[in-house]
Amino acid sequence: MKWIQGGVTSAKGFMAAGVEAGVKYQNRKDMAMVYSAAACRAAGVFTRNIVQAAPVLWDKDVVHKNASAQAVVVNSGIANACTGKQGLAYCERTAAAAAKALGIGTDSVLVCSTGVIGMQLPIEKLEDGAARLAGMLQGTLEAGTEAACAIMTTDTVPKQVAVSVEIGGKTVTVGGMCKGSGMIHPNMCTMLAFVTTDVCISGELLQEALSADVEDTFNMVSVDGDTSTNDTLLVLANGQAGNAEIREKNEDYAIFYEALHAVNEALAKKIAADGEGATALFAAKVVHADTKAHAKTLAKSVITSSLTKAAIFGHDANWGRILCALGYSGVSFDPEAVELYLESSAGKLQIFKDGIAADYSEEEATAILSCQEVTALVDMKMGQEQATAWGCDLTYEYVKINADYRS
Amino acid sequence: MKWIQGGVTSAKGFMAAGVEAGVKYQNRKDMAMVYSAAACRAAGVFTRNIVQAAPVLWDKDVVHKNASAQAVVVNSGIANACTGKQGLAYCERTAAAAAKALGIGTDSVLVCSTGVIGMQLPIEKLEDGAARLAGMLQGTLEAGTEAACAIMTTDTVPKQVAVSVEIGGKTVTVGGMCKGSGMIHPNMCTMLAFVTTDVCISGELLQEALSADVEDTFNMVSVDGDTSTNDTLLVLANGQAGNAEIREKNEDYAIFYEALHAVNEALAKKIAADGEGATALFAAKVVHADTKAHAKTLAKSVITSSLTKAAIFGHDANWGRILCALGYSGVSFDPEAVELYLESSAGKLQIFKDGIAADYSEEEATAILSCQEVTALVDMKMGQEQATAWGCDLTYEYVKINADYRS
Repeated sequence: MKWIQGGVTSAKGFMAAGVEAGVKYQNRKDMAMVYSAAACRAAGVFTRNIVQAAPVLWDKDVVHKNASAQAVVVNSGIANACTGKQGLAYCERTAAAAAKALGIGTDSVLVCSTGVIGMQLPIEKLEDGAARLAGMLQGTLEAGTEAACAIMTTDTVPKQVAVSVEIGGKTVTVGGMCKGSGMIHPNMCTMLAFVTTDVCISGELLQEALSADVEDTFNMVSVDGDTSTNDTLLVLANGQAGNAEIREKNEDYAIFYEALHAVNEALAKKIAADGEGATALFAAKVVHADTKAHAKTLAKSVITSSLTKAAIFGHDANWGRILCALGYSGVSFDPEAVELYLESSAGKLQIFKDGIAADYSEEEATAILSCQEVTALVDMKMGQEQATAWGCDLTYEYVKINADYRS
Repeated sequence: MKWIQGGVTSAKGFMAAGVEAGVKYQNRKDMAMVYSAAACRAAGVFTRNIVQAAPVLWDKDVVHKNASAQAVVVNSGIANACTGKQGLAYCERTAAAAAKALGIGTDSVLVCSTGVIGMQLPIEKLEDGAARLAGMLQGTLEAGTEAACAIMTTDTVPKQVAVSVEIGGKTVTVGGMCKGSGMIHPNMCTMLAFVTTDVCISGELLQEALSADVEDTFNMVSVDGDTSTNDTLLVLANGQAGNAEIREKNEDYAIFYEALHAVNEALAKKIAADGEGATALFAAKVVHADTKAHAKTLAKSVITSSLTKAAIFGHDANWGRILCALGYSGVSFDPEAVELYLESSAGKLQIFKDGIAADYSEEEATAILSCQEVTALVDMKMGQEQATAWGCDLTYEYVKINADYRS
C-alpha cells in the first residue's frame, strides 16, 4: 500500500469543486460537489441520533434503495436539522438542482449538510450553488482540496488523504476528505466524510467493508461526547480501476479493505487532532483486555473524560484521572493488575503498576505530554484483545468556540 | 417542613469541628469531624466506580456490618485512592486515632477523603489532626460551618442546609453538608455529603430511605461526567429527637423522607451550582415521558452535553444542541412531538414545537439565559413520568482549574 497525494479526486474518474454560495457566511467557500461520470456503487453509514437531519434521511433512501449514485452535494453553513417537512423538501430541491445541471437522475445525488441546527436553508442560494458547482468540476488534486476546504466549519485545516494498492495487476486508488471538529462522539461516523475509489466491487461488499471498518475508525473518535444529527460517511466506487469485480471476501477484498481502513483511520485521526480548540491528539490504546468490546469501552472512557482531557492540555501526568475513567467505564477489572504507560515521540514511561504509582520522573512525564500526539497505553493483563480510541485535549478555545458559535 | 439555619450541627446531639492539619496545603482548614455522643444508626451510598478509594472500602464495612457509628473524620487534601494496601492501613490508623481521642471503638469511626488521587497520606498529620479535632468539637452552628469549610477542595462556597419537621409531636431536624465541584457525575452520590438527624428510625428504613432518595437527588447531578473514586454520602441518625422509633413506612416515615429529600436535593443543587468554573445552575426538567427511567436519561443527556453547557455559558439559545442531546440519549421518541421551553426568573419561553423552531424572540431568550438558574423544560408528550437533572455551564474556568489542579 502506498500513501499518495490528494483526496476525493485521486481515484480515476472523480471530479470535485468548491464554491462561495453564501449559504450563511460571506467570503468563504461553503458548498462542495463530488462527481463521477460513471455510475458508482454507493455505501454509507449514518448517525444513530434519533434526531436525524433531512439530508441523512435523504441519503439513507438513496444508499439503501438504489445503492448507486454519481454525485454528492454538500453545504457547510446550515445543518438542515430540526427543519420539518420544509427541510426535506429543500433537500430534494438541492438534489434536483444538481441533477438537472449534471444531466443525471435526482435519486443519483447524495446531499449533506453541516452547520447550525434549526435554521431553514436559503434554498435559492443552494440551487444556484449546485448549478455553479456542476460547471466548475475538475479532476485535479487542487479541485479536491477546494472541495475539502468548502466543507469545513470550525475545522482549522482541510482533511484529506489517499492511498493506492495493486489488485489483480491494476492500480486501485482510495481517497477521501472529511470535516468535523465539534459535536464529535463515537456513535456511527460522527462527522461528514466522503471516500471515493475506482475499485470495482459489488455494492453488498462495499457496504459490508464500510460498516465493519467504521467500528474501528470513525466510531473510536470523540471530541466532546456530542453525537451530531448529521453524521454521514459515504463511499462511492466507480469501478474505473479495471480490476475484476470483487464479489467475495478473497485476497482482493482483503487488499481493498486494508486501503479503505487506512483512509478511514487517517481521516478519523485528523478529526480528533483538529477537535475544536485542541492542541494535542490524545489516544488511548487498551491492550490485553478480555473482549474487544471491553477494550473499546475502556479506551473511549479515557479519551472522553473531561478531567483527563484538561490534564493533557496542562501537560500534567494526573494519571489518577485515567484510572478513574477506566473505573467508571462499566467494565469490570482488577485495579491492582492494571499497568499504565504514557507514550509519545519523546518516549515511553510506566506510570502505574501493582495498584500504586510507579517510580517515574514527573519531568519525563511532562516532556512526553508536551508532544502533539500523546498516547495513554493501558495494559489490562486479562486477555488478548485490544482497541485504540482517539480524542483531543480540552482547552479554553473549545469553550470559546462553543459559547460563541451560533450568535 | 421548615427550613432552618445550619447544617450537620443543627440536629440535637451533633457536634463538629474543622482544623488546619497540613495534609496537602498550608493556611487552610483541611480536616473536619462530625460526632454524636449517642450512638447513631448509619446509612451510606457509595461510588459505583470500580476503582474505589481506601476510605470507601472502610466505610462500606462500617455501614454494612455495624450499621452504627458515632463519628466521621474527613480530609480534603488527598483522596487516598489508588494507594494499595498502605492506603487501607492509613485509613484504619486515621480511624484509630480519632477513636482513641473520642474514647469510642475504631469501627464506630467513618473516614472520608477527597483530593488528589494516587498520593499516600502523611499519616502522622492525619493522626495529629484527628486528635486535635476531637478536642475542638462543638454543637454550635459556627462549628458546623467550620466543618463545611474544611471539607472544601475546588468548591467556592461551603454547602450546608437544614430543615425541621414535626413527627408525633416532636421536632425532628435533618441537616447536612457536602463538598463537590469537579469529577461530578450521576452514578451513585458523586461527592462527599454528610447528613445528620436526631430522628429515631430503624437502620433498615434509614438505609432504604437514603438509597431511594439518592436516585432523584445526588444521582441527577453532573458537572463533568467523571464519576469519582471517592463518592460517599453518609447519614447518621442518633434518635435524640425523642419520637417513637420509625419501624415501618407509615406517616412518620413519609414526613422524615420528605425532610431527608429536601436536604439531599438542596445539597445536590448546591454542588451543581458550584460546579468547577460554573456561572449558572443549569437544570433540565423532562415531563410527560413514557417511563421514569427514560425521563431521567433524557434529562441527564441534556445537562451533560458539553455543547449545550457551553451555549448556556454564552447565554445563547442554541436549542438545536438540546434536541441533539435528547436524540443521542438512547431513548426512542418522535422529534416532531417534543416541545421545548427555556425558563428562569426572567420568564418562560417556548422555543421548539411541531419539529421546528417556535416563533420566539432571541432577546427574550437571552434574558432568560442570563440568570443564575436556568431550566430547559422538555415536554415529551408521551406519558405521565417526569425527572429533573442538575448541572452547570462549561466555562474557561473549568478548563483552567483542571489543567492546573495537580501541579
